Amino acid sequence: MWETSEQDRTVVQGRPRIVVVGAGFGGLRAVRGLRGVDAEVVLIDRVNHHLFQPLLYQVATALLPAGDIAPALRSVLRKQDNARVLLGEVTGVDAQAKTVRLSLPDGSTRALDYDTLVVAAGSTDSYFGHDEWRTHAPPMKTLANAVALRSRLLRAFENAANAEDPDERARWLTIVVVGAGPTGVELAGQVAAMTRRAFRRQFRTLDPRQARVVLVDAAPAVLPPFAEPLREHTRRELERLGVEIRLNEAVADIDADGVTTTDEDHMRHRICAPTVVWAAGVKASPLAAELAKATGAEVDRKGRLLVAPDCALPGHPEIFAIGDMVNLGDLPGMAEPALQQGHHVAKVIRSRLAGEPSPGPFRYLDLGTMATISPGDAVADIRGLRLRGLPGKIAWAGVHLAFLVGWRNRVAVLAEWAWTIATGRRTQQVILEPVRSPPGS
Amino acid sequence: MWETSEQDRTVVQGRPRIVVVGAGFGGLRAVRGLRGVDAEVVLIDRVNHHLFQPLLYQVATALLPAGDIAPALRSVLRKQDNARVLLGEVTGVDAQAKTVRLSLPDGSTRALDYDTLVVAAGSTDSYFGHDEWRTHAPPMKTLANAVALRSRLLRAFENAANAEDPDERARWLTIVVVGAGPTGVELAGQVAAMTRRAFRRQFRTLDPRQARVVLVDAAPAVLPPFAEPLREHTRRELERLGVEIRLNEAVADIDADGVTTTDEDHMRHRICAPTVVWAAGVKASPLAAELAKATGAEVDRKGRLLVAPDCALPGHPEIFAIGDMVNLGDLPGMAEPALQQGHHVAKVIRSRLAGEPSPGPFRYLDLGTMATISPGDAVADIRGLRLRGLPGKIAWAGVHLAFLVGWRNRVAVLAEWAWTIATGRRTQQVILEPVRSPPGS
Repeated sequence: MWETSEQDRTVVQGRPRIVVVGAGFGGLRAVRGLRGVDAEVVLIDRVNHHLFQPLLYQVATALLPAGDIAPALRSVLRKQDNARVLLGEVTGVDAQAKTVRLSLPDGSTRALDYDTLVVAAGSTDSYFGHDEWRTHAPPMKTLANAVALRSRLLRAFENAANAEDPDERARWLTIVVVGAGPTGVELAGQVAAMTRRAFRRQFRTLDPRQARVVLVDAAPAVLPPFAEPLREHTRRELERLGVEIRLNEAVADIDADGVTTTDEDHMRHRICAPTVVWAAGVKASPLAAELAKATGAEVDRKGRLLVAPDCALPGHPEIFAIGDMVNLGDLPGMAEPALQQGHHVAKVIRSRLAGEPSPGPFRYLDLGTMATISPGDAVADIRGLRLRGLPGKIAWAGVHLAFLVGWRNRVAVLAEWAWTIATGRRTQQVILEPVRSPPGS
Repeated sequence: MWETSEQDRTVVQGRPRIVVVGAGFGGLRAVRGLRGVDAEVVLIDRVNHHLFQPLLYQVATALLPAGDIAPALRSVLRKQDNARVLLGEVTGVDAQAKTVRLSLPDGSTRALDYDTLVVAAGSTDSYFGHDEWRTHAPPMKTLANAVALRSRLLRAFENAANAEDPDERARWLTIVVVGAGPTGVELAGQVAAMTRRAFRRQFRTLDPRQARVVLVDAAPAVLPPFAEPLREHTRRELERLGVEIRLNEAVADIDADGVTTTDEDHMRHRICAPTVVWAAGVKASPLAAELAKATGAEVDRKGRLLVAPDCALPGHPEIFAIGDMVNLGDLPGMAEPALQQGHHVAKVIRSRLAGEPSPGPFRYLDLGTMATISPGDAVADIRGLRLRGLPGKIAWAGVHLAFLVGWRNRVAVLAEWAWTIATGRRTQQVILEPVRSPPGS
């Protein structure tokens, strides 16, 4: 039981309070689905923006400014009078007292009462028990990750340009992406495109086409969720772009100098690379375990909560969990299931508040899946319709623009794409931090 | 004498090497003025971009993405085949051996030979001997500073929104800008505009118009370089925007909780504010002192080098210094003198290489000075023509767009301005770093 303050205990004007944790696809859709409802909706997130994660790799590769894929939550919700935004991290849930515990940006903690709770805290990166790899192979999950990765990639090329020893130069020109799922494939393809096109003519002491982009995965194929012909197409196109694909190779170790892998025949391989990105594994947010503890719900082996067919927790109809942190029919960890669950939960809450019958169990409408390979190529698998090449790319671009929040961002992103396709240049090729001379030099 | 490597000692194909230190207005103009010259031009900077400092406050106030005012040097110079970019910090000059000493991003050091040296290292912030103030009142000189300030400003409003105690809330809503020169005036006006317009409707637990933006200066007027009527206009308009102007008040102390000032009557005043920005003083880059030591040149009391009329150092016709770090007729520390000196030095070097007579001493053409006050108002003093209000703003916008490097950035910045004027919204309202719960919570 945590102490709750006056401000947060008071149910404003007698209205019930709906607390939504996480402003990703699921959480934000739930909040927007509660527009006009006579309740106080509190949206809590650790960041002040809604991150459009499917385009995060384009921030990491200097194509898009961070703000274009991350509208401020306060701006998105400015016209929804029943919603307020709270920047903070939820660290605990007391299901008996109906209270969440918060850590605020000023370092203080607080408890906040709820009548209904929607937890949409998503997933976090998983190093399969090797958290010591994180320093050398950071993930690309947050906007801060992507901006840091952009600096890291650009600085690797600066170090290569300064290197006098050819081996040293080759080392700096090697970039390893671990994980050949959609994130890894998109990032590897985009890094290769950046070195081959944007960097053309930018260097005098090296040829950026010599950059070696390596994509490693223990699985036998790239893009496992896609149909075989699309996987094969992706693999071929990535190789044409210059990406070196190493399948059936599991990561055995990562240190400051590179990656060690083990192949099917238990042979060890070493890739010397100071720049390694982790796109291999995710696990449910730690809040899933916290909720399981608080409610007695179960989790699967990926740490995802097993929820009732309407996304509520068993025995707790006032607590819902949605998105990547739940297992409801083992849906893929993508935007679409989270969006549809957010929409569904908002409908359930609305009908309850109105005293109407429940809309029933959640049903997932599979709208397909897609991944981009290169500036002119994407694969899409839309309910059996398989697209690739330019048609795939056009479908991909349309869907991604449609799901971006806000017309301004749609126009801005489309303009950046057009500019980059036309000129090959990338406008955000910026390392923020200046070079610092080591102390005493 | 430092050891130089083979790569850097060798004069490529017998061509002389011109080393330019600093890619600000002066340095970049010098490099571009050497286009087509039969020499190897090496441009060294601690950052990988050319920063358009006059718009830095618009990055700090969430209006522009960082990349739009900071094109990558490699991209700007991609078609200038005789120029190469080197990311590193120059830490020393040996004028006898004709060598500069470099600190590289990978932590190593190196020496680089030159035949001609152009030092355009600009200025750095000065805390007038109180470097302990820097932690509490960071400067706004680099792109990293501006992005950090953006987070700081946005987080202050998040803390205010979370605050339950009215005093605590008022404290978080107080922002102090120290220094009422152009940078301080533009930043204070823009912060006030952001709180009054962009933040409208974004908060439920506070009224962002209650934010208190305080502009402090020991001088008796804002914008000292401008004519009296323009200073008076600026002051009145800033006050109309809600900026609290405190002149004739010198900063006596800055700590984590706020600023203490002393007025003309030696009375002490206290402003409680966790958010303080330093826009008060600059001094010449430490490289000015380094060059003085290396060549025997003199510096003025602001640390600026006294150079010959052609910008060369006395007794060292092969070393030039330009921009904010030199005193040649005590010109103001702005873009225009640096640009004109960069242009002049390139002409001097070109004529020497061609064996032609020197173009003679540098002559400054005063094109005037301008500062923006609010989204619809700027003051401009152009050779006696004094503009303010909308005509001033139009002149200001035209000049700033003209001096931005690259058509893409001109179009992008103009579009952002139009969007913000039309909607009041700011597209880069992003705090990159997530809230972290304190350890053990």
